[in-house]
Amino acid sequence: MYLTQSLHRAVQQTPDSVATIFGDRVRTFREVADRVARLAGALQGLGVAEGDRVGVLALNSDRFHEALYATWWIGGAVNPVNIRWSAKEIAYSLKESETRVLFVDDAFVPLVPQLLAEWDGVTTLVHCGDRPIPAGMLSYELIAVYEPVEDLRLGAERMAGIFYTGGTTGYPKGVMLSHANILTTSYAGLATAQGSLPNGRTLNSAPMFHLAGLAAWNQQNVMAGSHVFLSAFEPAAVLKAIAEHRPTTLLLVPVMIQMLVDHLAIGEYDLSSVQRIIYGASAISEALLQRAMKAFPQAGFAQGYGMTELSPVATQLTPEDHRDQALLRSAGRAAVGIEVRIVDLEDKEVPRGTVGEIVVRSAGVMLGYWKKPEETAEALRGGWMHTGDAGRMDDNGYVFVVDRIKDMIVTGAENVYSAEVENALAQHSAVASCAVIGVPDPEWGERVHAVVVLQPGATATAGELRGHCKSLIAGYKSPRTVEFVEAMPLSAAGKILKRELRRPYWENAERAVS
Amino acid sequence: MYLTQSLHRAVQQTPDSVATIFGDRVRTFREVADRVARLAGALQGLGVAEGDRVGVLALNSDRFHEALYATWWIGGAVNPVNIRWSAKEIAYSLKESETRVLFVDDAFVPLVPQLLAEWDGVTTLVHCGDRPIPAGMLSYELIAVYEPVEDLRLGAERMAGIFYTGGTTGYPKGVMLSHANILTTSYAGLATAQGSLPNGRTLNSAPMFHLAGLAAWNQQNVMAGSHVFLSAFEPAAVLKAIAEHRPTTLLLVPVMIQMLVDHLAIGEYDLSSVQRIIYGASAISEALLQRAMKAFPQAGFAQGYGMTELSPVATQLTPEDHRDQALLRSAGRAAVGIEVRIVDLEDKEVPRGTVGEIVVRSAGVMLGYWKKPEETAEALRGGWMHTGDAGRMDDNGYVFVVDRIKDMIVTGAENVYSAEVENALAQHSAVASCAVIGVPDPEWGERVHAVVVLQPGATATAGELRGHCKSLIAGYKSPRTVEFVEAMPLSAAGKILKRELRRPYWENAERAVS
Repeated sequence: MYLTQSLHRAVQQTPDSVATIFGDRVRTFREVADRVARLAGALQGLGVAEGDRVGVLALNSDRFHEALYATWWIGGAVNPVNIRWSAKEIAYSLKESETRVLFVDDAFVPLVPQLLAEWDGVTTLVHCGDRPIPAGMLSYELIAVYEPVEDLRLGAERMAGIFYTGGTTGYPKGVMLSHANILTTSYAGLATAQGSLPNGRTLNSAPMFHLAGLAAWNQQNVMAGSHVFLSAFEPAAVLKAIAEHRPTTLLLVPVMIQMLVDHLAIGEYDLSSVQRIIYGASAISEALLQRAMKAFPQAGFAQGYGMTELSPVATQLTPEDHRDQALLRSAGRAAVGIEVRIVDLEDKEVPRGTVGEIVVRSAGVMLGYWKKPEETAEALRGGWMHTGDAGRMDDNGYVFVVDRIKDMIVTGAENVYSAEVENALAQHSAVASCAVIGVPDPEWGERVHAVVVLQPGATATAGELRGHCKSLIAGYKSPRTVEFVEAMPLSAAGKILKRELRRPYWENAERAVS
Repeated sequence: MYLTQSLHRAVQQTPDSVATIFGDRVRTFREVADRVARLAGALQGLGVAEGDRVGVLALNSDRFHEALYATWWIGGAVNPVNIRWSAKEIAYSLKESETRVLFVDDAFVPLVPQLLAEWDGVTTLVHCGDRPIPAGMLSYELIAVYEPVEDLRLGAERMAGIFYTGGTTGYPKGVMLSHANILTTSYAGLATAQGSLPNGRTLNSAPMFHLAGLAAWNQQNVMAGSHVFLSAFEPAAVLKAIAEHRPTTLLLVPVMIQMLVDHLAIGEYDLSSVQRIIYGASAISEALLQRAMKAFPQAGFAQGYGMTELSPVATQLTPEDHRDQALLRSAGRAAVGIEVRIVDLEDKEVPRGTVGEIVVRSAGVMLGYWKKPEETAEALRGGWMHTGDAGRMDDNGYVFVVDRIKDMIVTGAENVYSAEVENALAQHSAVASCAVIGVPDPEWGERVHAVVVLQPGATATAGELRGHCKSLIAGYKSPRTVEFVEAMPLSAAGKILKRELRRPYWENAERAVS
């Protein structure tokens, strides 16, 4: 059970079929396998041994595809770098994971000097872009003339990669996933919502460093299907690629689906090849779903909920589920082979309908966090992955994600989920955006505190907003204090950085919550 | 990763849906889970500990279903007994596997005294039939009033069962399969040909003791689908059950499909619920496929080829493959996650089109043969399961099974596959049935020898038959000697017992083949 097996199977069955498409470059399975075997030989020549990490700091491409396969070919572990991070964060992850060989494409060449300044342990830089080779870097295609080597066919419980996660939530952690983790989850996902299509083709436009992108990519590999790579998501390029290359499968987030259906020229493209749209990260609205179904008439929609630590699937909202409007706010049900529970703070299962932490057990649960045995033991206590997400489950097993556990506010003896308060606040016509956090309070331990950006020209007082909330939710959940700001601190991905909002309140406070 | 997880998931998501149907007995997932937990408690009470074997000697039923789950619930290993065997063979397998608790239904109660006479190690007999409880046996439903116990949730590499195989080929061997073996193969099978259908329902009419039946059953469990059980295959009962219970999925062998489409009253039944017909054991003819497609208009046909040692899938001929008439004689291509090769006697891969032994590597390959380390090492040498089947692979990876390796005749320096000679012989109008074997020959090492039953009233000489064969196949492959007999020795399953034909020739001969 190892990740390169899919390539051998495809070569055996459809050697001369198209495997990868990137711009004008089209390669068959036979060609890809030959290139992977040579690239693997080159990596060995560069000193990569079994278990060593190989980094990829690049936009999507056919070379990203080859680099992943080549690393596994010789028993290595991939480290697909989060391209949205700062040089400092990237350097941290390269250093912590001791990544010495790094693929870099044109987009990230400018970052290299800063990376090396932060950590000089990267000894080999391989340029996987198409512009002239920068000084100090090896040519990817030069590497491809190395002699091919035999696939070592190592896998199963062996670490296949370190996938860094974190970003907005503090120090990044390296999630170690095995070949069996990723493969078992792929098989299970294929068995249900994400479906298996003969002659499938995935359009890879969401970033491949992210495990959602990588898992969708691997599902197509497992089925011996083909890939179209776009360096990044750009609506016009996606529509054009669909019409031209006729993919069956897209992996998107709802905001990308929105951008596609909003595109003025969408009617000019033939999108009829698309049979599956897999999305994640957030729910889809009824209105958007209706428009998307009109734009992609053959497509079944499937939502996946999970996290990197789960390789990454926990639940799926199947195409059939999408017919029921009430389920659209759900993240779906435990996928095949996966156990999902909602538990209280003592890890006891709570009754249906009660909010608690979502925990998961499956063959996809990570090996652990790289070099973090304590965090690993904490996250995997009792044999279950603790997602840190608060949610509830209905009588039919549908999971509704409510909030992040750490965004939960403990005020008095009550738990308040910030998302619930934010939903209430957002319904006030004067509110443009808002965030609800817990701040230290001598009486309540924590106090429900709202940070609000008003609509241009609108006015509202703290008392008005609190009164509005109390008309919708319980008094103890409604904000006791409100702070009006001009703008929210945002992450590169556009998420509100709650830790920035919390900092001034907690910096000089003893953690007052028991 | 353990086999009872499917039941927990179904209870979480669809507790009040129908899980099992057997005659008038209909049970929901909640009911089945409760009964399984109580039966598991009873088994523990009867002394079954983790790893212990629990035998089931019974026709298909809902209780067979419960007994399997209950055994796994407490970490036991099932031993589903081959109901076609003689009492002597059954006793041998019970004794060798040290099976002390045995479920027996009404059909096999008469066999019990003989079994106990052969081996008295069976200490507990549980009657899972519906007639009055025989003396010396416990009532199944009495057991069901035990207190429920918690699922131990043991699995992954743990042995889930010993599945005896052999019968016509000598001493039976106990194939040890793990939870991961069976589950991974189920997932992979679902990803491709055998498909995953929402709200699926399997009609179990092929015997569940056989791993093909058990695997199809588990695939439906994994999908949280339901089951209809028929004690055994009987065409009228099958047609009636399809019309009444509307299953989506059937597991059959081609001769069963033939019996269904030949049934005079087939037109009176509504068979439109059937979406998948999975078959194995032999190829389907174009003529039969056409008729079956007419009878089951919604059904996709999928062939599986494999063996118990592979949990059991190696290759699949998908519904799409069935559109190509030339592929109907193929066993299909390596299924998802499975590696298949054709190798020579030195285990080297042979060129496409060349006949060799079919070998397989996958997460489904057995743990080994029970108490047979040498046979295990021989079968799994080099990490590949040696199927003992001779076959060839075409340029697109389609496997064509030619013969059993041990039915291969080495004459002079040439390999002759008996199936090829038999196919040629059978085309002679005077031949009713035939078998080709190798017999000792001072000149050739082995000599191609045919045993023939003529059509009633027909005549033919050895010379005529040899001449006929030489017009179709190479001279060295054509029988040098022909023996005319009145009837063939047949196994209980209707297979020609070649070992009986060989015996008189080899009994007093030194094995003359180098």
